[in-house]
Amino acid sequence: MRSDAPDAVPGGEDALARRIRFAVEADRLKAVLRRTRLVDGSRHENSAEHSWHLALLAVLLEDAAPAGVDLPRVLRMLLVHDLVEVDAGDTFCYDADANLGREEREQAAAARLFGILPEAQARELTALWGEFEAAETPDARFAAALDRFQPLLQNFYGGGGSWREHAITRAQVLRRMDPIREGAPALWPVVLDVVDRSCRAGWIAPDPPAAP
Amino acid sequence: MRSDAPDAVPGGEDALARRIRFAVEADRLKAVLRRTRLVDGSRHENSAEHSWHLALLAVLLEDAAPAGVDLPRVLRMLLVHDLVEVDAGDTFCYDADANLGREEREQAAAARLFGILPEAQARELTALWGEFEAAETPDARFAAALDRFQPLLQNFYGGGGSWREHAITRAQVLRRMDPIREGAPALWPVVLDVVDRSCRAGWIAPDPPAAP
Repeated sequence: MRSDAPDAVPGGEDALARRIRFAVEADRLKAVLRRTRLVDGSRHENSAEHSWHLALLAVLLEDAAPAGVDLPRVLRMLLVHDLVEVDAGDTFCYDADANLGREEREQAAAARLFGILPEAQARELTALWGEFEAAETPDARFAAALDRFQPLLQNFYGGGGSWREHAITRAQVLRRMDPIREGAPALWPVVLDVVDRSCRAGWIAPDPPAAP
Repeated sequence: MRSDAPDAVPGGEDALARRIRFAVEADRLKAVLRRTRLVDGSRHENSAEHSWHLALLAVLLEDAAPAGVDLPRVLRMLLVHDLVEVDAGDTFCYDADANLGREEREQAAAARLFGILPEAQARELTALWGEFEAAETPDARFAAALDRFQPLLQNFYGGGGSWREHAITRAQVLRRMDPIREGAPALWPVVLDVVDRSCRAGWIAPDPPAAP
């Protein structure tokens, strides 16, 4: 927020004012850059537009959701799943070092950020985010599957994208994509085909030979 | 899409392949810039991250929706409401000339874009988009209200934003915000307060004196 902006929204500390303050904080997600590039390669994607793309994918691929998945809940989950990055930043999935301490950073971010909201809503959104992170329910598994599938599409249609840029190997990609196998089994054959084509195109690096 | 990308997704012309092709086309919405700036003023907002912000606002401001609004439908509507801009571009709401021919451009875009999808889904999403544009149902009116309210917040917390940049007057802003009065009446007092504060701050231009 600019320093010349009024420091409180009309209404002060009531529920509506807190929700508005939260929405204004959320704007900062548009400045959190991921490693994935847009399909046209022109720039890195940010976490806000990524969240939109995932929610749109959930609508488009509703038929690929396993029985019992509650799509409206999945949409809410996807809309908030990356919000903690406003404080904690995005962590590149293939960078093991950067992932140390990620959980603590994100817990602190969730407490501060969701804490801006009225209590019941803070509880609901914190729980949805926690459920996504734990990836144990069918809703969270479907959401997580989409969160893996979308960068796969971006990389494939972008001619290799972040795989190529960071020399990611076939085994690394398949390990990263594994949650799709259970979270959205209907998409798994597409994943295998995309990975095979990308290996043949040289966009995904071959696995190093196994130790003797 | 890069020229070296395989031209068909695995599966060719089946429903899943068509949905994936649509999702990849939708990526281009991230490159459509609006006149509104991020709250920190650093750059213009794009229509993909704007769509995410609106859907998030719908979740946050659910209590402000008039009785009878179906929030899950509103979320789907907001996720697709700007997609036609992939072909038709964004049209600045305060530019009357640019708005000539907008409807025809957007209709053609909708036909091409949603036409990528399997028929039933094409019909559903075209209808949702058309409903948003017509702004006659409670769902569409609530969605339209959020579509006005979000740039109001961006401009206010950004110290004037596109109002200041384009010397927009109080009467212009109030006319633009008018759909909030019916679509989300609970937000209307906030609108009036924000407009008054912004006028006092000099971020919204005074109305020209009435003709004698």
